Amino acid sequence: MIKEVYNNLVDNYLKIKKDLFAFSQEISKETQDKVNDIWVPYVPKPEDPKGVLAIDGGMFSKEVRTGVVFVVNAEAVYHDGEKTEPKDKMARVGVFKPGNDARDMTGYAMELMELKLALHNPSPLILMDGSIKKKIGKKIDERYLYLLDQLKETDKSREILSLEMKTETEIKNSLILENKLLISAIKERGRTVWISKKSRSTDVFNSFYSDMTLLELFTRGTGYTKPKIHFIDVGSIEEVPELKKLGGEYSTFYVRLSNGSMILRVDVFGRITCDEIEHIMNKLHSDSIKGYPYPLIKAHSDVKVSKDDRARILSMIGRYNNLGVSWWPSQFR
Amino acid sequence: MIKEVYNNLVDNYLKIKKDLFAFSQEISKETQDKVNDIWVPYVPKPEDPKGVLAIDGGMFSKEVRTGVVFVVNAEAVYHDGEKTEPKDKMARVGVFKPGNDARDMTGYAMELMELKLALHNPSPLILMDGSIKKKIGKKIDERYLYLLDQLKETDKSREILSLEMKTETEIKNSLILENKLLISAIKERGRTVWISKKSRSTDVFNSFYSDMTLLELFTRGTGYTKPKIHFIDVGSIEEVPELKKLGGEYSTFYVRLSNGSMILRVDVFGRITCDEIEHIMNKLHSDSIKGYPYPLIKAHSDVKVSKDDRARILSMIGRYNNLGVSWWPSQFR
Repeated sequence: MIKEVYNNLVDNYLKIKKDLFAFSQEISKETQDKVNDIWVPYVPKPEDPKGVLAIDGGMFSKEVRTGVVFVVNAEAVYHDGEKTEPKDKMARVGVFKPGNDARDMTGYAMELMELKLALHNPSPLILMDGSIKKKIGKKIDERYLYLLDQLKETDKSREILSLEMKTETEIKNSLILENKLLISAIKERGRTVWISKKSRSTDVFNSFYSDMTLLELFTRGTGYTKPKIHFIDVGSIEEVPELKKLGGEYSTFYVRLSNGSMILRVDVFGRITCDEIEHIMNKLHSDSIKGYPYPLIKAHSDVKVSKDDRARILSMIGRYNNLGVSWWPSQFR
Repeated sequence: MIKEVYNNLVDNYLKIKKDLFAFSQEISKETQDKVNDIWVPYVPKPEDPKGVLAIDGGMFSKEVRTGVVFVVNAEAVYHDGEKTEPKDKMARVGVFKPGNDARDMTGYAMELMELKLALHNPSPLILMDGSIKKKIGKKIDERYLYLLDQLKETDKSREILSLEMKTETEIKNSLILENKLLISAIKERGRTVWISKKSRSTDVFNSFYSDMTLLELFTRGTGYTKPKIHFIDVGSIEEVPELKKLGGEYSTFYVRLSNGSMILRVDVFGRITCDEIEHIMNKLHSDSIKGYPYPLIKAHSDVKVSKDDRARILSMIGRYNNLGVSWWPSQFR
């Protein structure tokens, strides 16, 4: 990169540091009071992490001019009472038509895989990556409700049924519908929690900074926030029984599993009590590293599609636009 | 990555190849006829590339919980009659507040820098990366038109004036306004062409595949397509004189500079004639590598923010969330 960037960085150094780290002017006394009000200090008790299942997915898509190659995979990691090990896996490689929706569709397919792993591996406590709001937020296009007929058995199948639809638009809308059906199915089973390590939500403190940032600044020890209840609006689709089941409530709370470590945001369906939060904390704390549940780290690193993997997959398929010059910048291919 | 991905790739190998490369069923005889109709074979003549200026920008943004560090830089590369060399450069490092708009805002700032380099280095032929449609497409929020007062001199200044606005929302809206002002200014100067190497536009053939893909399949030699004229609708803001100037026409054509190389899409303001297209082709061809103008490649590689640059800049500023464990996956930081 050109040296002007470093010159500019040096010139602006103090301002950059100030903008990035100076909180005091912006955060009021009320924020501190509110933190004291909702934060419950709690020291987790050792508990056998047996029966904890963690699921994460990885994805990759590469657009070439004639189509988009996609790769999705997901893994379920289980603690059997002795150790934390992979228990179940899924993967799919395929092609979407060229277009703007391919990346979204790859993401939906990955989420479907994660949900299917959860349904096929029932466990007392299932950890998923992400948030309920994001999972249920995709808007259904009612013109495609007829696809539900072909998706009825999706909670029993290990295949992503939507990928068999005829047209690209059907595949896309079906992926969203299939997602909702699987989340409805999960909602009715045992305890599943969604854990998010990066959340920009501001609904607790209504500040410019995220709830996570404020909690990380104003608390240091282990503990959790009193749960906040959200209502799920299924909107105009409530005449469809399979989708109506999605309606109801979910709870959100923040948690710190070990002193000085990061804050996590946790979502669960239904209304959760403080006793249940403490039970979940105990389970997670017993198999965590630096405040993050180890099974999720394990799943995450297994499903990650590395740079080497990407190159290998594309070379197996055969690059469309390979100009055969190694120094050629990859963006120009 | 888990081995299931490779298993699935092997299982689906033939289908993936077929989906990615099989055109014949989908592309009709009419497409072939239409290509013959608009494609003009033309062998570029050697012409002194003196006076060609190429501009490209690079950017990088990294979100930490208390803000978003951004880096933008741009370079103008000039052919002085003897060689192609950097002529002018700009760079800026700063911080946006945390939020969803930071990436967009970084992009706008980079585009502003590219436009300012074009205005400060007048040349007979200026090459920019991208398309006119994308540059003029950002929608103005009329509530922020009052900011225009502070932006009046932007075409004369080397600074991005918008970054001095008071609130984050003002900065964002001002970046969009400043962009429009600079494009208006450029439109009134000498010949500037926007070159896009990856375009999904389908407005020529109205096919599922992009115009570029179809031209790459149905033509091999050097040549260009007859220009297509687009009308720029300035919409409801035409009562603002500075912005009204943006209205009018622009032309789009596709071009191949050397046999077998890729197709480029070119946009220019106004109505272009075939003679002018051939003149531009001659200029570009004389300083191109594998059908892509060398000055743009040079600018691109100079402004690129590499992985090493990113790491160095972040370590100079000081990571907010550094947990001090080297094996810790970067996504968890």
